[in-house]
Amino acid sequence: MNRKVISHLIGLILVLEALFMLPAVLISLYDGDYSVVQSLLLTMLTMAVTAAVLLYTARTRQRTFYAQEGFVTVGLSWIVMSVFGCLPFVISGEIPSFTDALFEVVSGFTTTGASILPDVEAISRGLLYWRSFTHWLGGMGMLVFLLAVVPQGPGAGYSMHLLRAESPGPSVGKLTPRLGETAKKLYLIYIALTIACCLFLLAGGMPLFDSVCTAFGTAGTGGFGIKGDSLASYSPYLQNVVTVFMALFGVNFSIYYLLLLKEYRAALLDEELRLYAGLMLGSILLIAWNITPLFGSVREALHHSAFQVSSIMTTSGFSTVDFDIWPPFSKAILIGLMFVGASAGSTGGGIKCARVLLLMKELRRNIQQVLHPRAVRMVRINNRGMHEQVIQNVNAYMAAYLVLAAASFIVVSLDGYSFETNFSAVAACFNNIGPGFDAVGPMANFSGYSILSKLVLTADMLLGRLEIFPILTLFSRYTWDRSK
Amino acid sequence: MNRKVISHLIGLILVLEALFMLPAVLISLYDGDYSVVQSLLLTMLTMAVTAAVLLYTARTRQRTFYAQEGFVTVGLSWIVMSVFGCLPFVISGEIPSFTDALFEVVSGFTTTGASILPDVEAISRGLLYWRSFTHWLGGMGMLVFLLAVVPQGPGAGYSMHLLRAESPGPSVGKLTPRLGETAKKLYLIYIALTIACCLFLLAGGMPLFDSVCTAFGTAGTGGFGIKGDSLASYSPYLQNVVTVFMALFGVNFSIYYLLLLKEYRAALLDEELRLYAGLMLGSILLIAWNITPLFGSVREALHHSAFQVSSIMTTSGFSTVDFDIWPPFSKAILIGLMFVGASAGSTGGGIKCARVLLLMKELRRNIQQVLHPRAVRMVRINNRGMHEQVIQNVNAYMAAYLVLAAASFIVVSLDGYSFETNFSAVAACFNNIGPGFDAVGPMANFSGYSILSKLVLTADMLLGRLEIFPILTLFSRYTWDRSK
Repeated sequence: MNRKVISHLIGLILVLEALFMLPAVLISLYDGDYSVVQSLLLTMLTMAVTAAVLLYTARTRQRTFYAQEGFVTVGLSWIVMSVFGCLPFVISGEIPSFTDALFEVVSGFTTTGASILPDVEAISRGLLYWRSFTHWLGGMGMLVFLLAVVPQGPGAGYSMHLLRAESPGPSVGKLTPRLGETAKKLYLIYIALTIACCLFLLAGGMPLFDSVCTAFGTAGTGGFGIKGDSLASYSPYLQNVVTVFMALFGVNFSIYYLLLLKEYRAALLDEELRLYAGLMLGSILLIAWNITPLFGSVREALHHSAFQVSSIMTTSGFSTVDFDIWPPFSKAILIGLMFVGASAGSTGGGIKCARVLLLMKELRRNIQQVLHPRAVRMVRINNRGMHEQVIQNVNAYMAAYLVLAAASFIVVSLDGYSFETNFSAVAACFNNIGPGFDAVGPMANFSGYSILSKLVLTADMLLGRLEIFPILTLFSRYTWDRSK
Repeated sequence: MNRKVISHLIGLILVLEALFMLPAVLISLYDGDYSVVQSLLLTMLTMAVTAAVLLYTARTRQRTFYAQEGFVTVGLSWIVMSVFGCLPFVISGEIPSFTDALFEVVSGFTTTGASILPDVEAISRGLLYWRSFTHWLGGMGMLVFLLAVVPQGPGAGYSMHLLRAESPGPSVGKLTPRLGETAKKLYLIYIALTIACCLFLLAGGMPLFDSVCTAFGTAGTGGFGIKGDSLASYSPYLQNVVTVFMALFGVNFSIYYLLLLKEYRAALLDEELRLYAGLMLGSILLIAWNITPLFGSVREALHHSAFQVSSIMTTSGFSTVDFDIWPPFSKAILIGLMFVGASAGSTGGGIKCARVLLLMKELRRNIQQVLHPRAVRMVRINNRGMHEQVIQNVNAYMAAYLVLAAASFIVVSLDGYSFETNFSAVAACFNNIGPGFDAVGPMANFSGYSILSKLVLTADMLLGRLEIFPILTLFSRYTWDRSK
């Protein structure tokens, strides 16, 4: 394994992360929170020194870089990013426990939005900004960002492997033949949509700081709120803006690229988009029907149903009401959506509509094949035959997903919380949603869990965001055996 | 599609089912329950007439029979068997509602053991016998029985397709080259083990009627008790007998065949057996550790832990205590075991250890393949390479399983029960276990659910026992389109 290239990339990531902390420093300076400024600067210094060491020792001309290195780089860099990213909280004392701070920052980077903070409004604005910004960074991925901004010399063969390992979904669509270009286009779309979201929020009278943080949380489909009641105290207009933008950020970004190319037909006929939109609309209607008695009017019910479905399905996790008290039928639908998740190639988490689609088509294919063994059929999506390797990987993904989620559920159950709490906690972390039900419901938080459970849930968030394999690779004997 | 062969086979099944009702008639005569005798005779008459019509109209020389016909025969015959099998309960008035009676009998045939009876001891002994005997019949399958007893003329090419469609597990092991022989051997092992179980129970002082019914419920890994408290009031010795025999009936029967052939090495090295035994022992120890405070002594905790793990993992569903009040960690392990289930080729349900093993090996293969795309690897179990088609079918099975279980959960949630109740109800029915947790816990029953939910759960039991495809085939347009 080419350890030097990996160290080099992680060094670059640390430099970027340190730079991204600068706005938080400025906000804290402006607010006069000097202890926060200190903690941020100290962290940035540590990062700079570590980065310098990594970059210096990892100078190499050897550029061999395979899928294995891609996975290891992505897995390691997310862990390193999180460990450094949580230091300001620990040093400033705003989250004294390292486990808690790590949980919070991993929850940020993985765009989960689960929090251990009993009172989020007690956190300083500088660190609230950084907390929300981790959502934005994690949504599209820091390594993808690296690909977009660092010019790739000849022989930099790592792009594809990194993009594949960090981007969500069963297969990565190259928007353009050159991958640096693809990464750049993805980020441009991402930035444009984030700015649009922010402007719509400002137009509705939301304060600038709130708008920026909420836009970060929406864009990354993260869900960290800066208020104790998430978005409940904002106006219906602002809630609707978030509803719409969450749904937009849950769409595969290649659809937007198709729209930019004026290929409207291909964009609208996309099968994953249709499944995503269909499931979302169907769920909104069913839940609105189910909760109308709670809200008195169909309009009110539709408003909250749309917000909550958009929030849960895109795995954002914002809330406008305590949906933990909704009837079991509505909660059952939300639980289902937690697992389905958003589209591949979006900033959302979960299993992803593309995988669900593939599994359904594979199922149909196999029923036909069992009934008529001699016919050979292909699984087709958008009229393109899917490579058997992609289907196999989706199946392996599902197997790993089930085993890891079940194991997490059993370990977390040691703490003695209710079945609903533990099940939804694992579902909410693995699928990067944030709030679950009962003791981890939208009006509660994860602070009651033991350290062991918090570490398991932290691992679940990373496994979910990176889609398991980059993390599994780190723990595979197979990876380290063959290192040279 | 060859409808005549299908009708012919279903006619034969009805004849057999009517004959199997005879002992219930004798018991009811002995007890003087003449209304029950009447209801049984009326049902048998209806079955005889229906069978006669089917057998007469279906006379044919054409013997073409493909996998499709196999699935349709199995799917239809189980539905027909259940509809006729529940008539005595309805006619005698012991279960007045048809939906309830159907639920109860499907629960019997599918060896689920979930009950809608608030007071099982109010049922007459004749019908209790029939209720328990459905477990025994369903355990190995009535069509497999047909294969064992009806001599197959030349050209009777249906054996393999029937065996494959009715027997649980990803692939059917032929014990002998001739399938009639295989079916006969399976039933002989089954009968011998059932008799052994019954003798051990009698030796412990259990009354004859109780012993026979309990042996049927144990052999089929069904779990219908004939007492309101399941097996709680029997002696620890009797409970231990059931613990051991449940575990034995959850083993792949081909292991016993290997033992009969004195191939001890092959039997003990079997990977599925090792996974099954390992999971069972590990779970027993973990739960015993977790519940020792509840029972005061390690011995008592081990006794109940062993019984409950054996009962849940083999998907029997007997209980000795109210494990619904056990700590969340123990319940989480039990929930996990509900899904894993017993071994393929046993009478137990669930996903089956063989599938879990295959999924884990597939996962490992795919991680290696993603890391080193050029290497071609095979999934091997017991040193035999698995055909890709088998792996694909397991994947398709898992996809169908997840979607159907999730949909059932959402529909059942309409009734307003707790998350834990609904989740465990679907898990308990789909995996053919019986009791779940909370409102459907071991000391409760399914009578509170609405008619819609009961029908959904009834369908889940059939889907679980027949492993989805035979039932899906019945609803596939593809099946009926091509009928000639």
